[in-house]
Amino acid sequence: MTDDAKQKFPPIVQTPRNTVQRLSRRASYDRDVINAILDDAYVAVISAMVEGTVRAQPIYYWRSGDELFVHGSRHNALFEALLKGEEACLTVALLDGLVMARSAFHHSMNYRSVVVYARARAVTDEKEKMAALKHSVDRLSPGRSAEVRKPSEAELRGTLVLAFPISEASAKARSGGPVDDPEDYGLPVWAGVIPCKIAFDEGVEDPNTQPPI
Amino acid sequence: MTDDAKQKFPPIVQTPRNTVQRLSRRASYDRDVINAILDDAYVAVISAMVEGTVRAQPIYYWRSGDELFVHGSRHNALFEALLKGEEACLTVALLDGLVMARSAFHHSMNYRSVVVYARARAVTDEKEKMAALKHSVDRLSPGRSAEVRKPSEAELRGTLVLAFPISEASAKARSGGPVDDPEDYGLPVWAGVIPCKIAFDEGVEDPNTQPPI
Repeated sequence: MTDDAKQKFPPIVQTPRNTVQRLSRRASYDRDVINAILDDAYVAVISAMVEGTVRAQPIYYWRSGDELFVHGSRHNALFEALLKGEEACLTVALLDGLVMARSAFHHSMNYRSVVVYARARAVTDEKEKMAALKHSVDRLSPGRSAEVRKPSEAELRGTLVLAFPISEASAKARSGGPVDDPEDYGLPVWAGVIPCKIAFDEGVEDPNTQPPI
Repeated sequence: MTDDAKQKFPPIVQTPRNTVQRLSRRASYDRDVINAILDDAYVAVISAMVEGTVRAQPIYYWRSGDELFVHGSRHNALFEALLKGEEACLTVALLDGLVMARSAFHHSMNYRSVVVYARARAVTDEKEKMAALKHSVDRLSPGRSAEVRKPSEAELRGTLVLAFPISEASAKARSGGPVDDPEDYGLPVWAGVIPCKIAFDEGVEDPNTQPPI
């Protein structure tokens, strides 16, 4: 686990593949910009070749330093492919608003997204693995890993933790209002942005005192 | 454009690839279940082989009948690959809550997700294309396509509309509270669910009377 403030990470590597072609003014290869987006979302989609076809899976992730982490069961075909060296493409997208223009054509979305190309590193060192799993819980509620029961030996063994370097990566974002053609601004139709975000409600306490059947 | 109520669609096709292996009790191959999830989200991730590697892109989509639709520019490497016949894997994920368990291991997420494997069909028929684009706008606000300026000939030509059959597809979802080991229920730690959802705010009207510079 790395404290961003204390450590300098190498710059994002720009390759033809992670260079945004369309609307490139919306793109960024700045590590801080990429990190800020990654730290605001919870679910990434991992895509990779599995048994001859492209497969994808949404998954909880967290960031630490210059790596993305995911965890899960060992019995997962996608994880198995990644462990064998298949490259992953990780995608994170946050919807920030619906952009309502005066013309059908110029309707759009405000969003922040990140794409990372990377091969997975299995976190096998026991200390590092425990620290990563702590981080995965503390991200949901700071300090929580100290309050809950820690992973047992068997749970640790059964949990696969994968780390992906955030290096060949890019961010793409749109913000602001609609951009219409000049001659459309006079049309008598409401235009603007309907903002949206992931909103959390009050927690609902579990009333169970035994596992539900 | 098809009215679900008036038309019967064939059942979802279950193949080894779209059969959920892990936690299969959370899976569904019911078209209504799949449709309900698809109709609740706005952004899908399209994954496909592009120039020899797996690439992925978040994108606005909408559903009509038994197809998913996306639109965009013709100058998009992913779209070009799909038009050449590369298979797509489309993923939609909605986060419904953070599941806080009494043990680190049993922390989880409530979610609804859909994965669709499909090849794209380019919508080239002008009438069908116009109807699809209307749908894309009306989905944001019912009836809006009749209020805004319709696509010009040039805009229509420049916009690619792709349709993906929802056939080899699956849904996976988790709901409800944490499920801890029996001996952990007595631990003095808050356990439950922190619900979340995409929340829309009041619209913010665009004050511009000309395109911003």
